Amino acid sequence: MGVDDFYGGVEGGGTHSTTMIFRGNGELVATIEGPSTNHYQIGKEETSRRVEAMVREAFKQAGLEEHTNLQGLGLGLSGLEDEETANQLISVLQKLFPHLALKIIACSDTRGTLATATQTGGIVLIAGTGSNGLLLNKDGSEYRCGGWGHMMGDEGGAWWIANRACKLYFDSLDNIVHNKDISLIEKLIFEHFSIKDRFGMLYHLYENFNKSFFASLTSKLAAAANQGDEICIKLFHDAGAALGNHVKALAPNVHRPMMEGEGGLKVVCVGSVWKSWSLLKPGFIQAVAQSQSIPELSLVELAVGMATGATYLGAQAADYNLPRDYSKNVKQFFHYKKESS
Amino acid sequence: MGVDDFYGGVEGGGTHSTTMIFRGNGELVATIEGPSTNHYQIGKEETSRRVEAMVREAFKQAGLEEHTNLQGLGLGLSGLEDEETANQLISVLQKLFPHLALKIIACSDTRGTLATATQTGGIVLIAGTGSNGLLLNKDGSEYRCGGWGHMMGDEGGAWWIANRACKLYFDSLDNIVHNKDISLIEKLIFEHFSIKDRFGMLYHLYENFNKSFFASLTSKLAAAANQGDEICIKLFHDAGAALGNHVKALAPNVHRPMMEGEGGLKVVCVGSVWKSWSLLKPGFIQAVAQSQSIPELSLVELAVGMATGATYLGAQAADYNLPRDYSKNVKQFFHYKKESS
Repeated sequence: MGVDDFYGGVEGGGTHSTTMIFRGNGELVATIEGPSTNHYQIGKEETSRRVEAMVREAFKQAGLEEHTNLQGLGLGLSGLEDEETANQLISVLQKLFPHLALKIIACSDTRGTLATATQTGGIVLIAGTGSNGLLLNKDGSEYRCGGWGHMMGDEGGAWWIANRACKLYFDSLDNIVHNKDISLIEKLIFEHFSIKDRFGMLYHLYENFNKSFFASLTSKLAAAANQGDEICIKLFHDAGAALGNHVKALAPNVHRPMMEGEGGLKVVCVGSVWKSWSLLKPGFIQAVAQSQSIPELSLVELAVGMATGATYLGAQAADYNLPRDYSKNVKQFFHYKKESS
Repeated sequence: MGVDDFYGGVEGGGTHSTTMIFRGNGELVATIEGPSTNHYQIGKEETSRRVEAMVREAFKQAGLEEHTNLQGLGLGLSGLEDEETANQLISVLQKLFPHLALKIIACSDTRGTLATATQTGGIVLIAGTGSNGLLLNKDGSEYRCGGWGHMMGDEGGAWWIANRACKLYFDSLDNIVHNKDISLIEKLIFEHFSIKDRFGMLYHLYENFNKSFFASLTSKLAAAANQGDEICIKLFHDAGAALGNHVKALAPNVHRPMMEGEGGLKVVCVGSVWKSWSLLKPGFIQAVAQSQSIPELSLVELAVGMATGATYLGAQAADYNLPRDYSKNVKQFFHYKKESS
C-alpha cells in the first residue's frame, strides 16, 4: 500500500449513488454517479452489481485499467444501519466480485457522510428522498434517530413532504381537514403525476410506486412555497420542525466537548431538501429551541463529494491513512445560539 | 329469470373475500370464504380468477353443477371506488369467463356492504385491515371519506393501528416521543414478527411486506388494551377518534330525513376492528360530539353475510328484485344522542 495505490468509496441513497476513487496521495481521480444502491429496494445482489459497475466505470473515467484492484473500499449505503446486514452485503459482494478490493467495509450512508466532515464526531442529518439522523461521539459511541424508510419514518425527507402534500389534498376533499385554498397544490399534484382526478394517484401509490419519482414532487412544492403558497410554506415549516426534532432527540447523548467547540454542535446536513433551508428554518429553530441540551449549533454542508468519507473508511479498513483536510470538506450555512433566559 | 335462477355476490377486502349465492326465491344456497380480491394488490386478472374460482366453489358447495350460470353477479370489492376502474374489472372478468354471469355490476366494498343494510341510504364505515367511509343518500348521491389504502389513509383500520404501535415503539427508542412503559408493546411486536431487535422490522416493512399479516398484530394490541396497557388503550382511543372523524366529515352531506328517522343517522359498521368497540368508544364519541351536524346516530352491524348486498345489486343489474327483509339484516350495538346545550 502507498501513494500509488487506489482507494474507493460509495455513498448510496434511495435514489442515486456516488462512487469516488482516490489515489493514495489523496488525489481524487474519478467521481461516478449511479442509481440507488439501497438493498431493501433492489436486493443485495443487485446492490453488489451496481457497486462493482460504478467502480469499473470510475477506473475507466480515470483512464486506468478497468480491472485495477482497490486496496480498500468503503460502502456508506442507506439500509445498512445494523452490522449484521452490512456484513451480509460484504459477503455477497465478495462472493460475486472477489477481486474488487482487498479490504471492504460497509456502514450506513449517514456514517459514511459524517466521515467526510469530521473524525472527532458530530451529527449527520440526511434529508434527501428519505431522512435519517446519526450522532457519533469521539469515543465511537453512536446514537441514531429516524431513517426507517417510507413505511415508518423519513420525516422531513422529500418523500415525506410529497406524501403529506397529497394526503392533505385528499383529506381536504374528504372534508377531514379544512384548508383555505388547495387549488395550487391540486394543480401541482395533477401535473406531476399526469392524472386528471385523485383516483389516478392510487396507481402511483400502489401498482407503480416509485419513491424517487413521488419525492420529486417536493421541488415543485418548494417553488410554490417560495412564491407564497401558504399550504406549501406550512409543509416546509413542518419538515423543518421534523428535522429539528431529530437533533433535539440526539442532543442529550452528545458528549459535552462536542457542544463546547467553536460554533457549538456540528450538524452535517446532506440531501436535496436542505436546498430549501430558508423554508425549513422557522420550524427547525422552533424545534431546536425547545431543547435544554443545545446551547449552540452550526449547520454545515459538504464542500466535497459525498463519497469522500466512505473512501476514508475504506482506506482505514486497509490500515492506510489517506491524506485529508477536514476544514476544506465542509461549509457552514447556519449558526444558532440559544438566547440566555 | 325467476325463483329458480341463481344470483351471486362477492364482498372483497384487502385480506379476504366472501362469495354468496342465492336462489331467486331469496334462499341462500352457499357462502364461500376466499382470499383478497383487491386488484391494486394482485391485478385485475388475478382478481377475476379468484372471483370465478369462488363462484364455482360456491356452486359445488350448494350441490349444483359447477358451471351453472348466474343471472346476475354483484362485485363489491375494495379498490373499485371509481366507475372507470370498476368497468375495467368487469371487462377483464367477462373476457376471461364469458359464461360466468349474464349481468355483472361492480362497485366498492363499501357500496356493496351498505346495500346489505338499507335501500334508503346511510353511512357504511369499514374498519378491517384498511378503513373506508361512504355515505349514500336516498337520491343516490354519494360522498366518501377515507379508503385510500395504507400509503395515504386507512385511519382507524387494523393496519393503521398496528403501524402506529410500531412507529410509537420506534419513536420511543429514537427519543422522539417519551412513553412511560413500552416493554409490553415491544414484547408483542417482537413475538408477532418473530424478531429479536427492531432492525428485523425492516424485512416486514419492505422486503416482505404483507399488509394482512402486519395488521393482525392489532388483535394482540386489543387484548393488551383490555388488560389495561395504557399505550394500547390510547391507540384504540385514537382509532375510535379517527373513525368518528369519518362520520363527522360525512355528516354535513347527509340528507335531513336520514337524520330524523328512528335512531337517527344509521351507520353500518363492518370489519374486525369493531370487535373492540368498548376500546374505540371514548375516542369515537369525542369526535362525533364535536360535530354540529349529528343530533342522533345508531351504529349497527350486519347480522347476515357481507356479500348479501352485493348479491342484491347483482340481481338488480339483471332487473330482478331478490326477496329480502332489511330488519333482519342488521343489529344495533350503540345509540348516541347529542346532549342539548
